[in-house]
Amino acid sequence: MGRWEPDARGRLERAALELYGERGFEQTTVAEIAARAGLTERTFFRHFADKREVLFGGSSVMRDLILGAIARAPASATPIEAIAAGLDAAAGVFTPDRRESARRRAGIIAANAELRERELIKMAAYTAGLVEALRGRGVVEPAASLSAEIGIAVFRVAFERWLDQTEERDYGQLLRDSFDELKALTAAC
Amino acid sequence: MGRWEPDARGRLERAALELYGERGFEQTTVAEIAARAGLTERTFFRHFADKREVLFGGSSVMRDLILGAIARAPASATPIEAIAAGLDAAAGVFTPDRRESARRRAGIIAANAELRERELIKMAAYTAGLVEALRGRGVVEPAASLSAEIGIAVFRVAFERWLDQTEERDYGQLLRDSFDELKALTAAC
Repeated sequence: MGRWEPDARGRLERAALELYGERGFEQTTVAEIAARAGLTERTFFRHFADKREVLFGGSSVMRDLILGAIARAPASATPIEAIAAGLDAAAGVFTPDRRESARRRAGIIAANAELRERELIKMAAYTAGLVEALRGRGVVEPAASLSAEIGIAVFRVAFERWLDQTEERDYGQLLRDSFDELKALTAAC
Repeated sequence: MGRWEPDARGRLERAALELYGERGFEQTTVAEIAARAGLTERTFFRHFADKREVLFGGSSVMRDLILGAIARAPASATPIEAIAAGLDAAAGVFTPDRRESARRRAGIIAANAELRERELIKMAAYTAGLVEALRGRGVVEPAASLSAEIGIAVFRVAFERWLDQTEERDYGQLLRDSFDELKALTAAC
């Protein structure tokens, strides 16, 4: 193991997002990312398996936050309330100081077909995780699948709005507002 | 152009589904599909660009059915009602006689990572199509995106149930029941 580098992971992430934005994801090498961060390739590979993991490596942290909150929701919570509590816990990741880098990340993913596919796969895995978490609370089908799919649908919309430059509400507020809009949309039909 | 082959497309589809199921998608060649169907490779390529298109070639027909029905929904329809009318039009594709081949197709896709990704991409394209169709009806954001995402969520669940061997309701009934369950789930929170 090399010497300890303060915030090496964060420095590598910032360098990678800069370079992916400037040159494109495909055109950027690990050597360039390490150089931009003032670190070695060896340090890069201590933190990330590959270039792509810089963009997707945080998802297990978020998954644990979300699934933990669903499991801890009160027994009286409806399936949708439990899902909403889970997604609200992601506010621990989607903090105001991470908004700009989340925007950059989204722009990089939108520009690359392989990364867009990877993001779709990630979301499908989240949906499957939510279904399992609801089953763990005793929710049966089709309520478990339907609530999970709806929850991910609301999350996608809230998250897109959070990325919007003109949007001033924070992630938690946008999520609550989107769930309220879901209720209004479905009550009207 | 070769001579006219009665129902060549249907014969090729059935042969492909059989072979993908027996040997796996990767292990099946176009030559084998054509031979099983009693047709030539040349005939195969008049109907399909490649092996994968046999599984995904019908999606443009369904897309037109769905988007046409959304455009024709009454002006008084809410966004969710317009989406429900669109998804209901897919009953023209998901007919009882196609249920068994839809099950086979789903099994083949579930067994192959590349095909699962392709299916996710197809669903994301449907969602984008629904958003556009709602915007064409004058629905603004976030209602357009939220209704489209919710509609696809309900569709996924209804379609999964339609594929279930133990399920006797038809696609249209399952779709309506799933929309009713959506209302019940969101009203309760």
